[in-house]
Amino acid sequence: MLNLTTLVLQIAVIIVVARTVGVLFRQIGQPQVVGEMVAGILLGPSLLGWAAPAASAALFPSSSLGYLNALSQVGLILFMFLVGLDLNPNELKKEKHAAILTSHVSIVAPFFLAALLALYLYPRLSDESVTFTGFALFLGAAMSITAFPVLARILTERNMQRTTLGTVALACAAVDDVTGWCVLAYIVIVVRAHQSTRPLWLTLTGSLTFALVMIYGVRRLLRGFEVTFRKQRHLSENLIALIVLLALLSAFITEWLGIHVLFGSFLMGAIMPKDRTFVRYLTSKLESTAVVLLLPVFFALTGLRTSISLVKGPALWFCCALIILVAIAGKFGGSMIAARIT
Amino acid sequence: MLNLTTLVLQIAVIIVVARTVGVLFRQIGQPQVVGEMVAGILLGPSLLGWAAPAASAALFPSSSLGYLNALSQVGLILFMFLVGLDLNPNELKKEKHAAILTSHVSIVAPFFLAALLALYLYPRLSDESVTFTGFALFLGAAMSITAFPVLARILTERNMQRTTLGTVALACAAVDDVTGWCVLAYIVIVVRAHQSTRPLWLTLTGSLTFALVMIYGVRRLLRGFEVTFRKQRHLSENLIALIVLLALLSAFITEWLGIHVLFGSFLMGAIMPKDRTFVRYLTSKLESTAVVLLLPVFFALTGLRTSISLVKGPALWFCCALIILVAIAGKFGGSMIAARIT
Repeated sequence: MLNLTTLVLQIAVIIVVARTVGVLFRQIGQPQVVGEMVAGILLGPSLLGWAAPAASAALFPSSSLGYLNALSQVGLILFMFLVGLDLNPNELKKEKHAAILTSHVSIVAPFFLAALLALYLYPRLSDESVTFTGFALFLGAAMSITAFPVLARILTERNMQRTTLGTVALACAAVDDVTGWCVLAYIVIVVRAHQSTRPLWLTLTGSLTFALVMIYGVRRLLRGFEVTFRKQRHLSENLIALIVLLALLSAFITEWLGIHVLFGSFLMGAIMPKDRTFVRYLTSKLESTAVVLLLPVFFALTGLRTSISLVKGPALWFCCALIILVAIAGKFGGSMIAARIT
Repeated sequence: MLNLTTLVLQIAVIIVVARTVGVLFRQIGQPQVVGEMVAGILLGPSLLGWAAPAASAALFPSSSLGYLNALSQVGLILFMFLVGLDLNPNELKKEKHAAILTSHVSIVAPFFLAALLALYLYPRLSDESVTFTGFALFLGAAMSITAFPVLARILTERNMQRTTLGTVALACAAVDDVTGWCVLAYIVIVVRAHQSTRPLWLTLTGSLTFALVMIYGVRRLLRGFEVTFRKQRHLSENLIALIVLLALLSAFITEWLGIHVLFGSFLMGAIMPKDRTFVRYLTSKLESTAVVLLLPVFFALTGLRTSISLVKGPALWFCCALIILVAIAGKFGGSMIAARIT
């Protein structure tokens, strides 16, 4: 049963804490969105649940997190649509080769390092229920996937999403992540062979077909929005509803294919008409509610579900530090070398 | 567990059906919002659940309605804030006496008629588990409460919310409904004495105190938003977050007091600065997502939870028709007489 009093209070608390910590992080030169995720960790089992278990259980009972998740996913769909909408295709074409090479290397390098690390970690962290292949692949996928929404939020925060650097970064991240999710889908099949997920070939061919249909087919049809906008200087409620609907449907298809909702809405945004007035108009219509009200819930939920206290004892902390180090080395080193070459 | 594929599909289906039926209703001169509610009935147990039970169970499993409800309530809070924001206080002052008399008569008249009707219906519809007092009061409250969000939506659809008529109608409805919810709170106490709800005196004095503090205290503090807006010609993301937060907190307080979230956010909107540029700016920032994406879910849910098939046999249909007739007579007749007098 939805408890409305709790839900409204939760959102209010998340907005206050996420904004406050976010602004503090900005003051010390860190991205606001990292602060918003730290806010989630503070509100979750790691701090509030540990310092004041009663308050934590009353404010964030585990039965209520599903409702917050529903809100946060809708916010994420809107936000990724807007990030895609703001993507600058001309910048992207100029830097096509750099983007493709960089993103491929930034998948392969972390994967290779993760496989090496798995040799060391497997006997220490895993038991017989997981095969070595599954373990190594999971570590590899986790290290090669970029936190796409986080990157997008950092770039929009710093107003970099339309620069060459921002465009290439977003495009690399998108290619990376689709590959990463495909690998993850494959792993789920390897590790949990009994579970009914989409077969890998469907995820792979489906995603590719869908992307091609969108880029070479649907994009032409979308030009109608820009034409109507130019004539009337605004979009009717029905047309805005249609645009939101398209973003939702595209998100539904990618989620159904086994990659994530966010790619669908990002792609729909990316193939929208790129006339500056049109983009600005549509952004101003949809941005505030998504960024101010719903998105902080998404980032806070990441922290709310993290329990730092599960990392117990010096041995586990050492493994944790090792994973972080290797992840940074793989991503940073690998992509730096590729970027230097191009 | 939240099923993301289902959720996204549900919202997409609701947007399509609600928009389509809404536009059709508009074509035949009926309010779009009534079409949106009919859309919900079509998607609910009354049509889809009856014609295609398998599809209905797959698309709207009862376990998923809570997530839709969470989204719809957040949409309602935003929408009622915007309706309050658009309320024209000068028009209201001119018509103060008309508003107060009309709204009082439009509570008393339906209540009186409902009590008479209860004499006839009680032996036919109720059993021993409900007292006559409880039955009569429930019927009275149900008939005197205006569907506030529906009225607001009809007025904004027809662009009437800033006219004298629209302002008086909204103010009457607000007074009506707060009274109605207090009566409903009282009934819940009478009928279900064992349940722990707020005591009635707390709901009554609390609501009154809260409204006075908001109107005579908080309103002055809110002027700062207008001053900042005039200086900078826009509001920063932090300030918009603060405004959304205030609407949420106000909604939380009224819900906690035992009246509904919507009164809190409506009141916060009503006491916001009324400079036209400021109102238009803030509305354009928050309106689209609320009205296009979240509000249709609210109205559709009303229908989704309605099962017309529970009204079985000619006797029940006769009672149903009688209730509707008396409700119309009480509301329409009562308030028309009062309005004529003033």
